[in-house]
Formats: sequence, C-alpha cells, structure tokens
Amino acid sequence: MISGPHILLINGNTTPAVTVGIEQAGRAAAPPGVTVSAITPPSGPATVESYLDGQLAAVGVCAAIAAQQEAADAFVIACFSDPGLYAAREFSRRPVVGIAEAAMLTAVQLGGRFGLLTPQPRLRPVLEGLVRSYGFADRLAGVQVVDWSVAAAAQPGPARSEAFLQAGRRAWRDDGAEVLILAGAVLAGLEVELAAQLPIPVLDPIKCAVAQAYALLLLGQPTNRADRRAVPERKACRGCPPELTAHLYRAED
Amino acid sequence: MISGPHILLINGNTTPAVTVGIEQAGRAAAPPGVTVSAITPPSGPATVESYLDGQLAAVGVCAAIAAQQEAADAFVIACFSDPGLYAAREFSRRPVVGIAEAAMLTAVQLGGRFGLLTPQPRLRPVLEGLVRSYGFADRLAGVQVVDWSVAAAAQPGPARSEAFLQAGRRAWRDDGAEVLILAGAVLAGLEVELAAQLPIPVLDPIKCAVAQAYALLLLGQPTNRADRRAVPERKACRGCPPELTAHLYRAED
Amino acid sequence: MISGPHILLINGNTTPAVTVGIEQAGRAAAPPGVTVSAITPPSGPATVESYLDGQLAAVGVCAAIAAQQEAADAFVIACFSDPGLYAAREFSRRPVVGIAEAAMLTAVQLGGRFGLLTPQPRLRPVLEGLVRSYGFADRLAGVQVVDWSVAAAAQPGPARSEAFLQAGRRAWRDDGAEVLILAGAVLAGLEVELAAQLPIPVLDPIKCAVAQAYALLLLGQPTNRADRRAVPERKACRGCPPELTAHLYRAED
Amino acid sequence: MISGPHILLINGNTTPAVTVGIEQAGRAAAPPGVTVSAITPPSGPATVESYLDGQLAAVGVCAAIAAQQEAADAFVIACFSDPGLYAAREFSRRPVVGIAEAAMLTAVQLGGRFGLLTPQPRLRPVLEGLVRSYGFADRLAGVQVVDWSVAAAAQPGPARSEAFLQAGRRAWRDDGAEVLILAGAVLAGLEVELAAQLPIPVLDPIKCAVAQAYALLLLGQPTNRADRRAVPERKACRGCPPELTAHLYRAED
Amino acid sequence: MISGPHILLINGNTTPAVTVGIEQAGRAAAPPGVTVSAITPPSGPATVESYLDGQLAAVGVCAAIAAQQEAADAFVIACFSDPGLYAAREFSRRPVVGIAEAAMLTAVQLGGRFGLLTPQPRLRPVLEGLVRSYGFADRLAGVQVVDWSVAAAAQPGPARSEAFLQAGRRAWRDDGAEVLILAGAVLAGLEVELAAQLPIPVLDPIKCAVAQAYALLLLGQPTNRADRRAVPERKACRGCPPELTAHLYRAED
Amino acid sequence: MISGPHILLINGNTTPAVTVGIEQAGRAAAPPGVTVSAITPPSGPATVESYLDGQLAAVGVCAAIAAQQEAADAFVIACFSDPGLYAAREFSRRPVVGIAEAAMLTAVQLGGRFGLLTPQPRLRPVLEGLVRSYGFADRLAGVQVVDWSVAAAAQPGPARSEAFLQAGRRAWRDDGAEVLILAGAVLAGLEVELAAQLPIPVLDPIKCAVAQAYALLLLGQPTNRADRRAVPERKACRGCPPELTAHLYRAED
Repeated sequence: MISGPHILLINGNTTPAVTVGIEQAGRAAAPPGVTVSAITPPSGPATVESYLDGQLAAVGVCAAIAAQQEAADAFVIACFSDPGLYAAREFSRRPVVGIAEAAMLTAVQLGGRFGLLTPQPRLRPVLEGLVRSYGFADRLAGVQVVDWSVAAAAQPGPARSEAFLQAGRRAWRDDGAEVLILAGAVLAGLEVELAAQLPIPVLDPIKCAVAQAYALLLLGQPTNRADRRAVPERKACRGCPPELTAHLYRAED
Repeated sequence: MISGPHILLINGNTTPAVTVGIEQAGRAAAPPGVTVSAITPPSGPATVESYLDGQLAAVGVCAAIAAQQEAADAFVIACFSDPGLYAAREFSRRPVVGIAEAAMLTAVQLGGRFGLLTPQPRLRPVLEGLVRSYGFADRLAGVQVVDWSVAAAAQPGPARSEAFLQAGRRAWRDDGAEVLILAGAVLAGLEVELAAQLPIPVLDPIKCAVAQAYALLLLGQPTNRADRRAVPERKACRGCPPELTAHLYRAED
Repeated sequence: MISGPHILLINGNTTPAVTVGIEQAGRAAAPPGVTVSAITPPSGPATVESYLDGQLAAVGVCAAIAAQQEAADAFVIACFSDPGLYAAREFSRRPVVGIAEAAMLTAVQLGGRFGLLTPQPRLRPVLEGLVRSYGFADRLAGVQVVDWSVAAAAQPGPARSEAFLQAGRRAWRDDGAEVLILAGAVLAGLEVELAAQLPIPVLDPIKCAVAQAYALLLLGQPTNRADRRAVPERKACRGCPPELTAHLYRAED
Repeated sequence: MISGPHILLINGNTTPAVTVGIEQAGRAAAPPGVTVSAITPPSGPATVESYLDGQLAAVGVCAAIAAQQEAADAFVIACFSDPGLYAAREFSRRPVVGIAEAAMLTAVQLGGRFGLLTPQPRLRPVLEGLVRSYGFADRLAGVQVVDWSVAAAAQPGPARSEAFLQAGRRAWRDDGAEVLILAGAVLAGLEVELAAQLPIPVLDPIKCAVAQAYALLLLGQPTNRADRRAVPERKACRGCPPELTAHLYRAED
Repeated sequence: MISGPHILLINGNTTPAVTVGIEQAGRAAAPPGVTVSAITPPSGPATVESYLDGQLAAVGVCAAIAAQQEAADAFVIACFSDPGLYAAREFSRRPVVGIAEAAMLTAVQLGGRFGLLTPQPRLRPVLEGLVRSYGFADRLAGVQVVDWSVAAAAQPGPARSEAFLQAGRRAWRDDGAEVLILAGAVLAGLEVELAAQLPIPVLDPIKCAVAQAYALLLLGQPTNRADRRAVPERKACRGCPPELTAHLYRAED
Repeated sequence: MISGPHILLINGNTTPAVTVGIEQAGRAAAPPGVTVSAITPPSGPATVESYLDGQLAAVGVCAAIAAQQEAADAFVIACFSDPGLYAAREFSRRPVVGIAEAAMLTAVQLGGRFGLLTPQPRLRPVLEGLVRSYGFADRLAGVQVVDWSVAAAAQPGPARSEAFLQAGRRAWRDDGAEVLILAGAVLAGLEVELAAQLPIPVLDPIKCAVAQAYALLLLGQPTNRADRRAVPERKACRGCPPELTAHLYRAED
C-alpha cells in the first residue's frame, strides 16, 4: 500500500546501534501497509539511566518530533521512561505514544497484574514512580532486577537469556505476575524466547507502542487539534534546538 | 485479505437493533483486511442500566465468547460497563477487550484528563467506580449527564446532537476535559458530529475497542495460555448456559 | 420468640453439604429469638474459585434473594467473594450482607491490620482486589496461603488445623496482623481452634455476617426503599432465571 | 433477661443533658435482653468542636472506659470524632466501638455513597479527614453543612427539621448520596423525621454503634486479649487521671 | 544576639533525662543568634510507646505550649508520633512543628525514598500510619526495626551503634532507602555515626524540626491568626489542666 | 558574616527582569549572615507555561546548577513547576530546593488545607498534577484562577491586587483553604498585601524555598554524597550544554 500510514520511532538515546534494534522490533509489529522507521534524536545522552539523562533525552526527542512533524502520521518515543511524552503531545498535531505507557496499557488488557524486568537496580524506583504516575500501582506485581550493565544486557546470548528467564520466573511464581514487560529498549527480541518458556505473555514495549500508534490512527482524530488552551503563544527561547525554534519558539541569543 | 483476522463484537444487551449499530461502528474502525462482526448474546436484559442488568449481561457475554471461541481471533465486549470482562479473559484463549477500558486507555494517550458523557443520571456512580477500578481516577475530569431516556438517546437527530454538544462543552470548558468519551453504545456515530464542533477529540468506545483488539493481535501472544493458575478444574455447574457447559463446566441438574 | 426476625443465608455454590455447614456456622452467631437458615441457590457452580464461577454464582444468588424476598428479613451472601452483592442490594427491599465485607468491617473494629487466610493461591489477587474495592487496602497486613485443594480444606482434622495454625502464626508474627479472617466458607469452625492458640482474634466471616445482618435490622430502616434512581423500569430479559422474571424482568424468548 | 449483656455508652463531652439524649438514642436500638446505659466522662470539654477539645475528650473517654472495664461487656464512644478510639481499643479487654466509624460501616452496607450532615462549617475538614482515615474516601458523596450553632442544633423543632431536611435533599439530589449520616450526637432522633421525607436511609450514629457493639459481642471474641505487642509495660505517668493510674499506669507527682 | 528568636522544644514524655538530650540535639542545629531550649511537659507518661501514651502526651504537650505561648517564638513537639500537633497548631499564635513531620519533609527534599529506623516492633504500624497521614506513603522505602527496649536504645555505646548500623544498611541495600530517619528522640546523636558509615544522609528529627521552626519564623507569618473558623468560643472544661484553663477554657468542677 | 553560606536562586526562565524580582524576594527571607543571589539560566524559554517550556527550562536550570556547583552552598529552582528538580538533586553535591515543593511543605505546617492562586487557566491541571506527585492531594483545598496574562500578572498595581484578593477570598471562603500559596514567581511581593487583608497566611514560594534551603544547610549533611547508585558513569552526550559536559558528560558531536 503506497499511501499507507507512517509510524516514526524516536530512539531516546543517541546510540545508532540501538536505533537499528528499535527499528527491527517496531517493524516486527507493523500491520500490513504500514511503514515503520526509526531515527536517532539530534541531541541527548548515549544511554538513558538517570533523571538528568532523561531531561536531556526529552529535549532531543521533542526536537526530533517537531522536525519530523510532517514526515509521519504518528510518533513513538522509544525509551522506557517515555522522555518528553507530555511535552510532545502538547505541540504535536499527530499522535505520540510512549513505549512504557503503551506496554502497561497492553499488559492490563492481558492479565491482572504485570511484572517489570529491568537490567538495572538504579532504575527500580524510577520504574515504580512511572507505574504510579500512569495509575497502575495496583496492577504492578513487582520489579525484578537482573543486575547486568546496560551494555551487557544489550548483547543477546544464552547467559542473558538464562538470567532474564530466571527473573521472569521469579516475577511469575513469587510476585504473582500474570504478564511480563521487558522494561528496556535494549531487550527487544528477548520476549519471544521468554514467552516460549513461561506460561504467561511477555511484552516487548516497542511492539506494544507501534500497535498503539496504529490503534490511534484508526480512530482518525488528531490530538487536541484546536484546543488553544494546550499550546501557549510562540515566544523567545534562548539556546533552543533549531528544530524547535523552526516552528515553536523564536530564537534568542 | 481472505484469511485476515476476525474481531467479534458481543453486544451486552439482547436488543438486535443495538447489535446492528455496534457492528456498523466497529466496521468504521476496522483496519484493511480485518473482518468485524457483531452478535447478540444468547441471554440477558434488553438494556444494561443497573448492577443486576450487568450481572445477567456478564453471563450472556461469557456464554457467547465461549461458544464462538474458535470462530474469532479476538473479542470485544460492547457494553460500557464491560460486563464479564475479567471472567472472559480468564477462560478465553484469545484476547478480550472491553469498550470502557479501551476508551479510557485511548483517552489517556490523547490528553491529560478525559470527560465522560452519559444519558443517564443513574449511571454516574457506576461510571465513576469503573474509572476508579481501572486506575484512572486522577485522569477523570468529570461525568456530564444528559438526562434523556436510553431509548431517546438512541435516536439520532438535531435535538440529541444539541443536547450532547452542550454537555460536551460543559465538560471541556467547566471540567477541563481534554478528551471526551461517549459512555454508551447507543451513542455510536455522535462522536463525528461532536468532534467537528469541539476543539478536543471525541471518542466512540466501540471504535477504540476494535483498534485495541487489533493492537493485541499484532503482538501475536495468546492470553495467559498456559498459566494453570488462572483456570480451575472443570467442575459441575447447575443451570449453566449450554455454551458454558459445552467446554468449561459439567452440566448438573 | 415466634415472630422474631429471620436471617436467610444464601450459599454461593450449589454443593448442599456446604450449605449445611454454612447454616451451622450462622446459627452459632444467632442472637436469641432470631431464626437463621441457609439455602442453596437454584443455579451456579459447585465451588467458586474463578471470576467466571463468581459471575454464575452472582446470578444464582440474586435469583434466590428475589425468590425469597418475602420469606426473610435480611439476607446474607455466604461466599467470600460476595457474588452479586451490589446487584442484590439494588433490588432487595431488605438488607443484604456479604460475608467478606462483613468480616472486614468487623476486623477493623477489633485491631489495626487484619490478615486473610486462604487455601488457594489462585484466590490471592482476587482477595487483594476485594480488600481494595472495600477501601481497606491500608488495613490489610497480608494474605497467607495454605496450598490445599478446597476439597481437602473442607475436611476438619489435625493436619488441616496445623496447616492453618502455621499460616495464622506467619500472619501474626511476620505480617503484623492483629486480627485474622478465615477467607472461605469451607473453613467455618476452624476459628475456634485457631483463636485458642493465637494471641489475636480469629473471625469466621459467616458469623460476622449474621451479626451484621442483625445490626442492620436493629436500625429498622429499609434499604433505598423509595429511591427510584436505584432501580430501572421492568424490562425484557432473555433466558432470565424464573425467580428474576417473576418480579424484576419480563420474560422474553 | 437478667444476665444479658451490658453496653455502656461514653459521652464524649461533659454536658449531662447530652448524656441523657445519648442514652435514649442508644436504648432505641437495643436488642431484647440487652442493657444500654450512658455516662458522662470524668473530665473533658462541654462540647467537642476542635482538635484540642478532641484531645481532652479522648483522655476523659479512656479514663471512663478504664474505670468501667468490669462493669460492661462493650463500650461505645458517643462523640462523632471517635476521640480515644484507638487508645481505648489498645487497653480494653472488651470491644470498643466509635459512633462515626460504626455509622460509616453501616452506611456502606446500605448504599453506594453516603452523605454527612453537620451543623458546623468548622467540622467539615475534620469529618473529611475522618472519612479518609477509615478508608471510605471513595464512598463519601459529600458533607452538607447547616450553619447553626451546636446549641441551636440540639433543640428539636420545626425550624431545625426543615433546615436539616433541606440539607438532606441537597445531599441526595446534588451530591448523589444514597444514605445519610447525621454527624453529631446532638441530632439524635432527627433521623426518624428525615427518613420519613427522603427516599434514602438516614442513620443515627449512636444507634449504629449500639448495633455494632452487639454484633461484636455475638462473635464472642475478646479484642487482642493476649497479644502482648499491643500493650506496653505499666509505667509511670505524671498527672494521670486516677482512673488510668488505677490499672494502666503508676502514679507519679 | 540578645533579641534573637527563641525556639522552645517540648519533650513528649516526662522523663527529664530525655529532655536534656533533646535540648542538646536541638542546640546542635540552632542557627546563629537563635536560642533553643527544652522543657518537660507538666503531665504525661514516662515514655510514649502506645496510643494511650500518645493521648496523654498530647494533653501535656498542649498544656506546655499554652503556658509558654508568650515565652517563645516557635514550638517544637519533640516526640516522634507528633502528639497534639494539630491541636496545638489550632490555638497557638506561633508556629508549631512536629519532629516526625519535619523529618519527613526534610527527607523528601534529600532523596527519593526514605527509611525509618525504630527500636520497637510495636511502633511499626504506628509509624506506617503516620507516614500515610502525612501523604508520604509512596516515599517510604520501609521501616527497619532494631528489637531493643527503649531504655537500652537510649544508652550510647558500640553495641547500639552496630545494631543501628546494620538496620541502616538493610534499609539502604534491601529497601532502597536514599535517606534515613532515626524515628525516636532517644536516638539523638546517632545520626552522626551512621552518616559517617553509610552512603546516604541520616536525619535526626529534632535537628530537622529546629531547622523547620526557624524556616517558618523567617517567613514572618503567624499561623491562622485571624481565622475565626479555626478556634471555637471559650467553653467550660472539667478537670482541664490549669495551663489550658488559664487561657483556652473555663474551669469547671 | 563574611564566610556565611550562599544560597543561589536559579530563575526557571530567561527573562532577566524576573531574575531581579526573584533575587529581591529571596533576600527578603534571608537569615542574618546568609548571602542570597539569583541568576538567569544559560538557556531556556522566556516564560514557563507549557510542558515543553518546562522541559527546556529543566535543562537550562541543571546546566546552571552544574556550572555553579562550587559557587554556592545550596540551590533554589525558582520556577513554580520545579523544572529539573529530581535531575539536579541526582548530581548536585549540595542541596537543591524547588519553590513549589518548598511552598507546599511549608503550607502543610501552617494549616490543614492550602489553596493555590494562579494567573493562568492552562496551568491548573499542571498544578494539580504537581500537588499529587508530592503527596499532598488530600491537602489541596483547590486552585483559584485569575485569568490574566502572565505579563499583566507581573505588573503590580491596584487592579492586580484586587483580582488576587478576590481569588484569595474564594479560596478561603468557598474552598476552605487555611493557607494560600501564590503559584508563580511573578507574583512575588503580593503575599504581603494579601496577608494583610485575609485571615490566613499567604505564602510566597521563593521565600519558602530560601528558608528551606537554609534549613537543609543547618543539618550539615550533603545529599546522597557517596551513594553510587544515584549517579551513572560519565558517558557521551551529543549537543549537551557545555556546563554539563564540563563535569557530567563527555561531549560528542
């Protein structure tokens, strides 16, 4: 289908290899006739592991969405803390989906309580706060941590599979999780292996987000398109990324 | 696409005319190659307006989903209180979507707080309880009631349009709603008119649910398929609908 | 006392032996002059262990309460998930008490936090959801599971006593429970043994419910008796139990 | 019944006329064979309208319950902020019921959401906090205030009846209350008049509390009787009321 | 600075040795020119370990604050359950700070989640309830208990240091606490030792409270000074402490 | 005091005139011997009125705090949405205070429920979300909006005073607020006028934040100084502000 919709994934970090993996994962969930592609944001950290990383990622992600506004029908922020999600929704005239939110919205439709698997102890409170802010605190069975570096967690192999399978088993058996979410973009693909060995669904958040973006497109309603309350007047912004001054701010030295 | 997926909508009440409207609404959101059809449940009340109506509807809906288990790839419970949703998810080997849950999951991706429009004062506390149970209490701007009988609310025409438009304006202006949900299957189609005259998205929950059902199908994961914790042993059930005794219970006099 | 009030217990399942046990437990808490009896509902599953079981039980329970409306002064739904409670309260002109709700209302008056003892791992999330929906999430010390089949848990004997005593000790010592609730109708009677060996009160929910039903009768106020918002017009219902069409619906083929 | 149980009501304030009214209200809900009487505490303010009043009332109430420990089978704290409730439960070997808690526990069994009627604007945030602390925030329809002095509100007559009837109508019609609670001991008796003119139950909290006290007695379980965690060692207390030093503390100058 | 502000600490118990320790801790956080002193209340228990202790302490604390109203610029209630806090704020014309509330307000500004260290298992549910009532349930990492008597916990020495250090490590490593609060006035001073050996801040609540009291003084605004809604008319109070009848009540026999 | 502590305020926007006003307000609350100064961040929007403005402001604020890390003893983020607060706390070795959080922490110590006054309808849901995320949802009396442009609201004069006084009166009388917070940096100074005419305290959040920063300094504990969980390894960041690459990231093209 030549004129089919285009869903654009924005990597939250600036590591091109991760962008490639995100694109592959996204395409695996693309419906017939839908184009899925991924880009690296113009600015931001190499990985997103801290609040400060997230703040910098949010600006890069918003700049990318502003710059590509006419180039896609829907946007997916492909980073599990959903950096810049509310800000992008505010100015974008097309739907914006966050992979963490999308994964949770999917999980609650598949089971009672979901478990999160993350490679980093540091992210545990961040993830719990995210779950709470989306209203799903009562649906969280728990967060299971595999204490691996992000770099190590990004490399497929039997050791990684085994470590996450163990964590998944704990989530299922001890925490009572009825669905699992792989809380990290670098884990894409692992859900197939895990789902084959666990009695519950295992979700890749990137796939969930592509599916949600398409779901929003099916409804054919732009977001907040005419609600002038949502977007303030164009104003000066110092040191603003050029992608944002092009449309949303006036540049200022 | 001949072998495309089939999404089956189950009307929550036993009024065939409503089933027809549900099928039309559902088809309007069907992606290319997807078959959408609607059926009336084998038992249940003519309309769902009370807790008791909801209990009877739940059994009828579950019976229909059990009977059609092999005939569809995903199921949508098309009644705004989502009768039987958790029960159907428990036994169904294919995804089951509720239109109220689907509409709320959609709304929170399109704006900060959503408003509900309902024709019935009696349903206000029921709707508030539903919002709360899904975790979205903080996202509810309010419930606006148009005090019309369900029968009257089911008839399109300028008076109905005007009454709901007024309610939508109050939700937007007074309650601060950034998205509206038409909380009732009989209102299908009205969202187009309202969206044309209000500066915020207006959602038909049936369309949202079809889109969500397709989103779940894109992920290709059966629900809780092997988790034996979820489904108890087959046991005797007295006076059980034949659709349920056929597979899930043993009949008993 | 010949003209004393009559409290009718409705078993949630259709196993007559359980009805007998429920009646015994209820009579043990009956005040002087009060008649307590128990009946098996006209339809429903042999045991209630799943959401679907609960949906079927709810209809059977409501049918029984509708049929016995003039035969009793108050009704108790004797099944720990309180199936059909809100629906029965909606149409019944006499008080309706649920044993789970009654047990929790009692427990919070006897101690800070209560623990639940259940024979089934599968019921843990169901019980937690029930506690939350009644507003007592902050009062729940925890759910202790004794992994026995319901059938086994229904048979008194030293092994059962010991298993539940261990679970009760964990609830008291590890979870900090100050009151225990036996979360299951088949455990009736065990509370006496446990209370003799633990330093905290142990509640049988059936007794709690009989006491609550009598408490409501003492107030002499019918429930929602004239509030026409609560009950919709009599309407058609297909495949409706005869007990419900007799008074609340019009039968329809 | 000569040896029937004795329920003792403790007025929260030191105004004997209010104690008389409390005793009358309590007796109106007493089951056959049960003795209900009321006493004025040995110390405390003439009315309870502030946090400081409540602190002083709590000590007086606890002193009374300690002094009468052997003279009654159950105690009711008859003051709508339940002063000293948790403290009294801690040391009392017999059940202690608070009228506010008892009224709310009753209300949620009779309808979806309850409304509170109070004569004093100052008490509104106190009442809302109390509702929240008992876990019933989601069940509160609202607080309706009749701006009368407590003294005026304590005098029966057509003006009082009319004022509270108006407030009750607002609670029912505007707030959606399905049950009403008279939030104040001085309003005892008014519930009969209001219930006759409103389509929903109207609860006198004193009656509710007597019924709850009897419900706890029916269960035959002492409160926390052997749990040594609950009560600390006997220790010195300076300026302690003699009723408390007699049993619970050592006097100290 | 002769005319500098005076912050008065009120010990919650009547043990003079504890008052001395409180004064020392408070002075260690006093800003230049600020006078900090501590007094023992005129009445109350020797230690505060139960709800009843807390009720008696509240009256003693309020009496002290009423009696010293003109003698200080701000008051600190130096007992970790904040007895009498809301009551004292109601009548005091100068700021009143509670050490538990102050410690939590400080902790949330220093880290994501805080842990509480307490010497007493009995206090665990009390502390959890306090955290909840202040709105910080989501910020509590956990309560770690060192099972020592209060008397033992009050004696500095290597065994005490080691026991609390172990508890602090569990809070940091297992519960994920990013800040620790010593939940007890008898632990004053221990925070220096612990902070030297743990990688996270450790807070003495008395110091936090002195700092908060000074912060309120810097704003130069009296509390609720003219809001007549807050304080009721002067009324009779029987057996009222002389400090309270001197200003806030009329004495009555 | 020459070597006294230095509290540095970071304006959230890049309008120098607002920075001047912030410095004046901050100095008005500075304790003796404490230096208070304010700076404009190196980048960001001219005003902060939207989520996107907030994201850009957060980066500018964090850059300023990183650059001034050695130049001050504590930092205040002087913008009512607290942009970058959690991120700055993560890397800063000195305390970081947000004016919104500080104002709320102050307000709850001065009264039961607080009201917020804001000049902008658009900010209402943002403010409500902020209150909720800090745990004070139960303490919020309401948000009163004065529908003025930010520019107009920044100009002192009798019309502004009158408009905000009216809003304050509504908050006090209708919403039951016991304390008011001026939710905007441009309103600094107005709290004196309002406090003179209303019976409740009125808080300028900048003053509150300076007082809180000093309170944290009095405790003498660095934030999370050695907890390596909080701060990830130094990593590459593309297009990162030079203030951040200087210390926290490696620059990357």
